[in-house]
Amino acid sequence: MQSLNSSSEERRLEVRKLEISDKNKGFIELLQQLTVCDSVSDKDFEDRFQELSALGNDHIICVIEDDRSGKIIATGSVFIEKKFIRNCGKVGHIEDVVVDSSARGMQLGKIIVGFLTNHAREMGCYKVILDCSVENQGFYEKCGFKHKAIQMAKYFN
Amino acid sequence: MQSLNSSSEERRLEVRKLEISDKNKGFIELLQQLTVCDSVSDKDFEDRFQELSALGNDHIICVIEDDRSGKIIATGSVFIEKKFIRNCGKVGHIEDVVVDSSARGMQLGKIIVGFLTNHAREMGCYKVILDCSVENQGFYEKCGFKHKAIQMAKYFN
Repeated sequence: MQSLNSSSEERRLEVRKLEISDKNKGFIELLQQLTVCDSVSDKDFEDRFQELSALGNDHIICVIEDDRSGKIIATGSVFIEKKFIRNCGKVGHIEDVVVDSSARGMQLGKIIVGFLTNHAREMGCYKVILDCSVENQGFYEKCGFKHKAIQMAKYFN
Repeated sequence: MQSLNSSSEERRLEVRKLEISDKNKGFIELLQQLTVCDSVSDKDFEDRFQELSALGNDHIICVIEDDRSGKIIATGSVFIEKKFIRNCGKVGHIEDVVVDSSARGMQLGKIIVGFLTNHAREMGCYKVILDCSVENQGFYEKCGFKHKAIQMAKYFN
């Protein structure tokens, strides 16, 4: 958990792991700003939440809650892939980083990425990677990332 | 498991999941053709193998063994990431695809990628993704993938 005070407003913004009650704090609506994400039933949310919880520190989702509105205004996830290469090394994969449109410009994205990057480092990863659009390359460079490869995708129907 | 006969030689090449005995069939040496991979102790190999086995179909490594030499000549892995987006969707991540330098030109890479892609589809993923160098883009396009984004990386010391 990491706390920060946002400038003069003394707005308290806390980075913490996703909790099951975050579904009622706009977590899914926040993800809808990222990509296709229909409303999720409480049962489906809880099932997925438990599946991910079972992975412990190998897959975490972090969020920032705005204590004024009680809303989740930023999130991101990282999972730890275990390999044989690099002497049975581990790689952190950052996914699904999004900041609420009303909260942009407050460096929340950088805070989320920093939190996830630190988690990967603490888990013993030799690197952390992510895929993004060319438009977001500059943002991730500010977070200390370098353009390394290209992402290829195949969608199923 | 998938069997195939390679042209006139009637060489039998089988795609199957990694087995613990594959360490003695050149599996680590094959990975060394991909990237840094020092020799791994039997204990470390077994520990990592068991960690991955515990994930069941959520993380598989497949290999092709040459029945003539008894050597592993191709491999690749895929793990299944569970998300909240896309209606609690799943994404397959293909990693560490490599074909032995003596076995190139036999379409083994395509067979490995096809096997891993099918696994992701069967696991209910809405897409399968991978990162590669620009030089390998053409190969993955032949496997049905499209260039979608860029990969950013941060290495830890």
